[in-house]
Amino acid sequence: MNPTLVAGIDIGGTKIAAGITDMAGDVLFGARRPTPAGDDAAAVMGALAEVIGELAARPEWAAVRAVGIGSAGPLDGSRGTVSPINIPAWRDFPLVDEVRALVGGRPVGLVGDGAAMASGEHWRGAAAGARDAVCLVVSTGVGGGLILGGSLCAGPTGNAGHLGHIIAEPDGEPCACGARGCVETAAGGPAILAWALRHGWRPDGPGAATTQAVAEAAHAGDPVALAAFDRAARAVAVAVGAVANLTEARLAVIGGGVARAGDVLFRPLRSHIDMVTRLSFARGVTVVPAALGERAGVIGAAALARDL
Amino acid sequence: MNPTLVAGIDIGGTKIAAGITDMAGDVLFGARRPTPAGDDAAAVMGALAEVIGELAARPEWAAVRAVGIGSAGPLDGSRGTVSPINIPAWRDFPLVDEVRALVGGRPVGLVGDGAAMASGEHWRGAAAGARDAVCLVVSTGVGGGLILGGSLCAGPTGNAGHLGHIIAEPDGEPCACGARGCVETAAGGPAILAWALRHGWRPDGPGAATTQAVAEAAHAGDPVALAAFDRAARAVAVAVGAVANLTEARLAVIGGGVARAGDVLFRPLRSHIDMVTRLSFARGVTVVPAALGERAGVIGAAALARDL
Repeated sequence: MNPTLVAGIDIGGTKIAAGITDMAGDVLFGARRPTPAGDDAAAVMGALAEVIGELAARPEWAAVRAVGIGSAGPLDGSRGTVSPINIPAWRDFPLVDEVRALVGGRPVGLVGDGAAMASGEHWRGAAAGARDAVCLVVSTGVGGGLILGGSLCAGPTGNAGHLGHIIAEPDGEPCACGARGCVETAAGGPAILAWALRHGWRPDGPGAATTQAVAEAAHAGDPVALAAFDRAARAVAVAVGAVANLTEARLAVIGGGVARAGDVLFRPLRSHIDMVTRLSFARGVTVVPAALGERAGVIGAAALARDL
Repeated sequence: MNPTLVAGIDIGGTKIAAGITDMAGDVLFGARRPTPAGDDAAAVMGALAEVIGELAARPEWAAVRAVGIGSAGPLDGSRGTVSPINIPAWRDFPLVDEVRALVGGRPVGLVGDGAAMASGEHWRGAAAGARDAVCLVVSTGVGGGLILGGSLCAGPTGNAGHLGHIIAEPDGEPCACGARGCVETAAGGPAILAWALRHGWRPDGPGAATTQAVAEAAHAGDPVALAAFDRAARAVAVAVGAVANLTEARLAVIGGGVARAGDVLFRPLRSHIDMVTRLSFARGVTVVPAALGERAGVIGAAALARDL
């Protein structure tokens, strides 16, 4: 058996996943449950306890020395609490204390899901070996994480890397966060769909009004659908350009459901990034799809546990 | 005599300054020369050699163990070369090698002037004691530096912290860097002056068309002058907000000539920053004027030398 292992837990609005990994980032065993809906904090914690219980029942568990958590936000990693928008049952929920009680007092760390994704892609995915990189999750919202100088930059409360709330259009649309023109208001999946509908794109039938259908229309050459993805790409480019100018990071890893649109997002994204990174040290950003998919969260959370 | 000292060199388009400091950041001795104009690389190097010569003639010099340089950019700290826009005589000039030859083989480090300013303000100025901070120089151009986790984030080539080239207005004015709508195109001194003139502000007479005169008019209540500073503040706020969302840094230190405008810049700046930092971990950015003025460059370069 491995002398030392770590565990990672990925907490989102639809599922709770966890895994035991070795120190090379290979997942030896994984478990998952749907995230209970509703406002019962204990029910959500119950699902998490079951996932942890599956891990703890494994013979490898004895060698696990620390547990990392990546959670949907907002969260406060310094206090160990979470208030995920998509898990209404948990508000200022003392997640770290609760988990610590279930894992025999092993060290427990907590960062945001974007930071965990970045950490995972840096350990075993598309950012492996990079000194500096920015990783984005372009999905319903837009999140992300930063790798600087070879390490995750999580910030004092685990929230660093929130690229989705950089301002892409100062007079743009209102964002759920309270600001206007955040990247998310142009690049989030629902934002792409709403913009396409507002500008005349029509789905094939009832129930077909999805961001994926807009992506398919864009692939088929629909000009409004292409423009919706171009607008999303331009907003993401503002954020990636900001990171390149601020940190010299010249690798952008793009994951999340919207990234599955492929070329109709990546082609304009590369072009817009080139236009906003003109200084020598920022020029030449490489843009690649994320490599780990859903596994990035668990692997990244486990990566965090290495340093606990 | 102090057992260990460091030296800092600040290289700009108008002056070359240097100093010996103790390990508390107190400047024991300083020297400076105007930067020679024209395209004679050796003349500029000659002025720098004189400044270093003044330092080396001091008894304290024997205790200096390393030398830091903060230079106007662009530069490549990894190769030790500089090509400052405002020093046309130097293009890919091997500054680190040249300085090393003058300082008896002591270790020599090089970062950009914005990074050096941030490093100085963090050691002895308005960012002292901060874990995370962003420091800006709002002058003819807009530069800056980042302090993350208690240390300078200079990037692989010493250029990190280039806030002036974050995009503040995607369809904004062309920037010297080749992009459009960079912070600098709204917040740089000449940009403020040009905008005010274009929108009807009139100076008192020939030679009175200066950014400082626009600032004075703003203090006197001139609506166009106030709007010019509001626009500058909004652009700077986009950059500070991007940093807060990306890194959780909630201290912004603002220096440079434009910052001397005071309230007409700082008041709208605080208001615009509040509007673009709505998430809990980014909210509540403190905005303060820089404390060290011109001395930040030398002190910050010396701070860099501590780690060489």
